[in-house]
Amino acid sequence: MPSYRAPVEDVLFLLTDVLRIERFNNLPGFSEVTEDLASVILSEAGRFCADVLQPLNQTGDREGCKRRPNGEVTTPAGFKEAYRAFVEAGWLGLSADPAYGGQGLPYLFTVIVNEFASAANISFALYSGLTQAAFAAILTHGSDEQKKTYLPKLVRGAWSGTMNLTEPHCGTDLGLLKTKAIPNEDGSYAIHGQKIFISAGEHDLTENIIHLVLARIEGAPAGVKGISLFIVPKFLVEPDQKLGARNAVSCGSLEHKMGIHGNATCVMNYDGAKGFLVGEPNKGLNAMFVMMNEARLGVAGQGLGQSEIAYQNAAAYAKDRKQGRSFSAAKDQAEPEPIIVHPDIRRILLTIRGFNEAARALLLCVALEADVAHRSEDEAARQAASDRLGLLTPVLKGVLTDIGFDNTVLAQQVFGGHGYIGEWGVEQFVRDARIAMIYEGANGIQALDLVGRKLAKDNGRAVMAFFAEVAGFIKENAAEPDIKPFLEPLEKAVEHLRDASLWFMNNALMKPEQAAAGAYDYMHLFGLVALGYMWARIAKAALARRAHNNATQAMEFKLLIGAFFMERMMPESATRLARIRAGAETMMAPSAEMF
Amino acid sequence: MPSYRAPVEDVLFLLTDVLRIERFNNLPGFSEVTEDLASVILSEAGRFCADVLQPLNQTGDREGCKRRPNGEVTTPAGFKEAYRAFVEAGWLGLSADPAYGGQGLPYLFTVIVNEFASAANISFALYSGLTQAAFAAILTHGSDEQKKTYLPKLVRGAWSGTMNLTEPHCGTDLGLLKTKAIPNEDGSYAIHGQKIFISAGEHDLTENIIHLVLARIEGAPAGVKGISLFIVPKFLVEPDQKLGARNAVSCGSLEHKMGIHGNATCVMNYDGAKGFLVGEPNKGLNAMFVMMNEARLGVAGQGLGQSEIAYQNAAAYAKDRKQGRSFSAAKDQAEPEPIIVHPDIRRILLTIRGFNEAARALLLCVALEADVAHRSEDEAARQAASDRLGLLTPVLKGVLTDIGFDNTVLAQQVFGGHGYIGEWGVEQFVRDARIAMIYEGANGIQALDLVGRKLAKDNGRAVMAFFAEVAGFIKENAAEPDIKPFLEPLEKAVEHLRDASLWFMNNALMKPEQAAAGAYDYMHLFGLVALGYMWARIAKAALARRAHNNATQAMEFKLLIGAFFMERMMPESATRLARIRAGAETMMAPSAEMF
Repeated sequence: MPSYRAPVEDVLFLLTDVLRIERFNNLPGFSEVTEDLASVILSEAGRFCADVLQPLNQTGDREGCKRRPNGEVTTPAGFKEAYRAFVEAGWLGLSADPAYGGQGLPYLFTVIVNEFASAANISFALYSGLTQAAFAAILTHGSDEQKKTYLPKLVRGAWSGTMNLTEPHCGTDLGLLKTKAIPNEDGSYAIHGQKIFISAGEHDLTENIIHLVLARIEGAPAGVKGISLFIVPKFLVEPDQKLGARNAVSCGSLEHKMGIHGNATCVMNYDGAKGFLVGEPNKGLNAMFVMMNEARLGVAGQGLGQSEIAYQNAAAYAKDRKQGRSFSAAKDQAEPEPIIVHPDIRRILLTIRGFNEAARALLLCVALEADVAHRSEDEAARQAASDRLGLLTPVLKGVLTDIGFDNTVLAQQVFGGHGYIGEWGVEQFVRDARIAMIYEGANGIQALDLVGRKLAKDNGRAVMAFFAEVAGFIKENAAEPDIKPFLEPLEKAVEHLRDASLWFMNNALMKPEQAAAGAYDYMHLFGLVALGYMWARIAKAALARRAHNNATQAMEFKLLIGAFFMERMMPESATRLARIRAGAETMMAPSAEMF
Repeated sequence: MPSYRAPVEDVLFLLTDVLRIERFNNLPGFSEVTEDLASVILSEAGRFCADVLQPLNQTGDREGCKRRPNGEVTTPAGFKEAYRAFVEAGWLGLSADPAYGGQGLPYLFTVIVNEFASAANISFALYSGLTQAAFAAILTHGSDEQKKTYLPKLVRGAWSGTMNLTEPHCGTDLGLLKTKAIPNEDGSYAIHGQKIFISAGEHDLTENIIHLVLARIEGAPAGVKGISLFIVPKFLVEPDQKLGARNAVSCGSLEHKMGIHGNATCVMNYDGAKGFLVGEPNKGLNAMFVMMNEARLGVAGQGLGQSEIAYQNAAAYAKDRKQGRSFSAAKDQAEPEPIIVHPDIRRILLTIRGFNEAARALLLCVALEADVAHRSEDEAARQAASDRLGLLTPVLKGVLTDIGFDNTVLAQQVFGGHGYIGEWGVEQFVRDARIAMIYEGANGIQALDLVGRKLAKDNGRAVMAFFAEVAGFIKENAAEPDIKPFLEPLEKAVEHLRDASLWFMNNALMKPEQAAAGAYDYMHLFGLVALGYMWARIAKAALARRAHNNATQAMEFKLLIGAFFMERMMPESATRLARIRAGAETMMAPSAEMF
């Protein structure tokens, strides 16, 4: 049976020593969170995820969700009670606007709790995560009445949310979507169409489900410019907030998936269901993108979470499983030693851990930018934070889910044959983590978003600010001999990233295929630099603790993990650059029939 | 529903133009195989795998194997009939010694058919593959009587074989094994113990199952020097070859696995089962290694096979699925185009295909060495072939299964959300391919075998011969401008491999941890060089066809795929070298508790 312990100390170290969140005490919600309170909140959240959610992970995988003939869906045993407990403990509305019943704490905390929950039980975490994203979309684009009607119930977890984008013939290319919205006389719309891959589309956790649905109002322009966003509640809401008639939306079937069996992934049929327009007609994609961007950070946290639980279990196994002897063992030693003595096992564990710590730092960095972007009164700060958030969201989504998945596969290898059978639970991490590379925009789309949209935006303002910050850090710390081993590989990788960016500028402006051909490697190169930068910052903080005689074993370990990352991961930047420079020519030469 | 078409033309091109197998006409079994006959054999085998085995793959995954309370195991519907047809068509004994009813064709052909069968249905292919491996072990180490008793039945597929190594507390470290063999009065042994993860341990495909079991004769030395190999038939064999009493070996349970559900992975209980010693007492590991090495090439073929079927289905999907538009599409074009127009989709497809073609060339190269090693009358040729076989077996097993798995994951990404649901079948490729990285020696063990054993063996004779051959090829073709783009990146990677080998010599002799710490990257660096060398040879052959006005679209495509591989894959060699040079120091510094 796998187990989980939330990395609370690591998170607290990041908050206090690396991100130094006390700098943001002037933002709403931040001043309340003293170091002690943060510790209490995170310990509680960690305990909840470990004690309540994680034990339901393996059973939920085996049992799965079930659809009854009438279209109702039941979640695995224990999910309902756990969801109620999750909601009652306040985890759902942790950062939500107090005007609607939220606790108003920094969004940062929601991102942290999301990592813990996604590590413990990704299927479960999807239910609450989508509700938070629906909250954000309605908050940003809904009318006052819609906010009043839906937000308090969403925050309290009485109702849940979904995102309805995909249709059988239309995934990435939303311009093709066919779901129709026909105006009713009362100002609402009748929604007709079919949506697929709808996470949490139908379930028994909440009394109502608020579907956010993209559809095309009759007569709207073709393509993405004719898409509107609608609220389609499972049960219509009466003026007195009571639940009214059952709406004409139903779960047609459940998808049989590789993993996340505990989450109900539904085919949803809209047969003239009553829908309420959110925001302006034909501006639905903008509104949905609020939800999508929030969800993308959530999915990045899933990649990290799965990598974290995979690490923990692999490390525990490696300390327990005895097989072979170390090179330093006496020649006549007959007794086998724990496999953690073997360099190749350490290579795997340090590879995973080296990612996890830096990825967490990066995710929290960006979550903090989201807080600044939404809560600061300083316009310049808001803009800079918003730039950074936009730039790094695709990097986080793409890189944390790709490497997070790879790490579950690495962790599985530590278990040998035991990794392949269900009992140990690690093969489930692999199956569950795989989805995160696909949904909320497949990672190839994240790469295109980064290269095709985010780089050039505002004349490259966001990426230049990023380069300037990293260069500033390197310069500032150049005189510190202990940080040097972190700065040199970082500097080299930054140079490669700069070269890659220049290569795009020189080659892709006239021929965008050149950028598309290198986008994926660019995204990973960017991720590598960002993670390397995080390691340099973590190392600086750990060294500072050491200088204050406050060094613990944990800090020593961090410095070693970071050194491993710098030695072994950073050299990849050269390969990425070489691939980017290879360009599109060879790739685009074969005709389609040749493949 | 996934589909499969065996890459017969690609294989024939490799046989005739790249490997030029007509050079080996002096070896037994080779002269019979004219180009025409090879084409007929491979087309037939391909058709069988595509038409009979592949349709059972998805159904077999869903149905799985079932164990009845009495310990009997049934395979999924259709497996029994397919196995009979497989055997009757002669695929099982294709290369087996004619003295025992085999057809005596080159082993090369068995390796090719194994790739086809493993692509179509890896669960199915395991049943026959283990039987072939058992045949090889008994042929090499069995007594004349054992050969007479077991080999004809194994060749004809009336009986099947298994390998019994692993025990609950003992996987990689076979020295720990506890299964006991107590001498009976009749010269046989009573086998007591439990084995786990036994592929094809019990099933309904054959009338008898011949278990090859590692056990420790009472009083034998501790560790690997006290292990003996036994034949333990499910049904004892009477002197007249009829089946006698049921032996005391039974399937205690089936493992619940991530994939290969169609193969029965058993816990096997030996409760005083009658066993017959194979070869010398306490020399069991040597005998088992015959089986193991054969099985390792088989597993390499599984990695390649899964990568091949994943490619085929992803390419078909990419040509069919319409989503988005190419950069060259007219601005006002409303209709979406097949996703194969997108560079990132081509990146994925060419990455997979660039591996598949070179990996197949390498696998067949090495299979040919196995033929020479076993069939040549020239001692020097036998030795050189045996060296090459020993050197490249761990590389093939480790690299073809690692990258084969990665490629199934890449292919899955082409399908977007559809790749995650069972219907399309591609998620099964991921689950099935995963096991190949683990069994027959986890890939970390392959890396240690390469670096710790094969490199230094006979003063590095094998690796030096490999370097000399590649250097010779580069020199020989240096004047050909069309081959140059293949030689330059190859030369650079070879240099990195040489540097890595030197680094080990300089750093690991006194401190073997330095080698173990870099072994995994070294194995992949070696694989990269070997695959790059294959591409150079394929390119040469394709260019020769072009020079003879015999260029087809397929040859043009090969040159493009090869160019892609050289541009995008070969630069990885620098990263691998950097990691190797990072050494063991950082890795070994943390104490076990820190992890």
